[in-house]
Amino acid sequence: MSVNTVERLFLEELKDLFSAEHQLTQALPRMITAAESAELKSTLENHLEETEAQIGRLETIFRTLGAEPEEKRCEGVRGALSEGAQLYCETPEGELRDAAIISTAQRVEHYEIAGYGVARTLADVLGHSQIAQLLQESLSEEKSADMVLTDVSRAVNASAVLHASA
Amino acid sequence: MSVNTVERLFLEELKDLFSAEHQLTQALPRMITAAESAELKSTLENHLEETEAQIGRLETIFRTLGAEPEEKRCEGVRGALSEGAQLYCETPEGELRDAAIISTAQRVEHYEIAGYGVARTLADVLGHSQIAQLLQESLSEEKSADMVLTDVSRAVNASAVLHASA
Repeated sequence: MSVNTVERLFLEELKDLFSAEHQLTQALPRMITAAESAELKSTLENHLEETEAQIGRLETIFRTLGAEPEEKRCEGVRGALSEGAQLYCETPEGELRDAAIISTAQRVEHYEIAGYGVARTLADVLGHSQIAQLLQESLSEEKSADMVLTDVSRAVNASAVLHASA
Repeated sequence: MSVNTVERLFLEELKDLFSAEHQLTQALPRMITAAESAELKSTLENHLEETEAQIGRLETIFRTLGAEPEEKRCEGVRGALSEGAQLYCETPEGELRDAAIISTAQRVEHYEIAGYGVARTLADVLGHSQIAQLLQESLSEEKSADMVLTDVSRAVNASAVLHASA
């Protein structure tokens, strides 16, 4: 089907995000199990809860637009998760694997930051102010999750370097 | 080969970025041809030049580390570019296709922002201060390119909505 209106393009963006979030809810439990640092585990657990809430928000948005919630497989997040899983499976358990898990999670977060940013801009120009607000909430959560991961990564990486030179 | 040191993990991150940037230099000329807005075309042309300079920086970094520049296929960017190309090929030429192109470019930019952020943090903890500075330069360019694309998208989207209601 041709994407011939701004509304259609907006729906395509929402379907892509809906798929990205679902893929992330599948991947996060494995990442939590693979992580060693208690701080990283709890950061990812919090983000899993946020991700579930973000899926709920997207469902609300689809219904507000009179559409059924639908996924269009997000290849960007699929690729990021697949190469990320390969990377952290190749690293020994501990700080180094934690660093690889954070790297994977931050790639997905940034992909979603771009997706929510684009969708919120489209909601704005379409005059869907309440929907734009819901998308902004998810966007703010993604940005905040990314910043927390950066903080956790500094501690994890410093510890990995110290550990290696001990 | 096992990723068993921080240095190895750092090299893996660099190879991923090296692949991402090369894929982008292949995709940008097609995106420039498909774009209609002169502002978008020139933004993408500038970013193509920046991307080539970023590849040069990565080559310098590999050599500083005593390694040959090498790609490890970046599946995240491959996926983002492939779904993006599908999306913008499905949209009619004009503002709507431009909006789809911007959406694709911003997903790739954000993926790279995450990648450069992770790599710069690793360079910092490894004490590679000059390399960290080179990575920071590319990171700043990616963030700036993303912001310019957001500005261009506001004009393009508003014009698409006006056009549709005219």
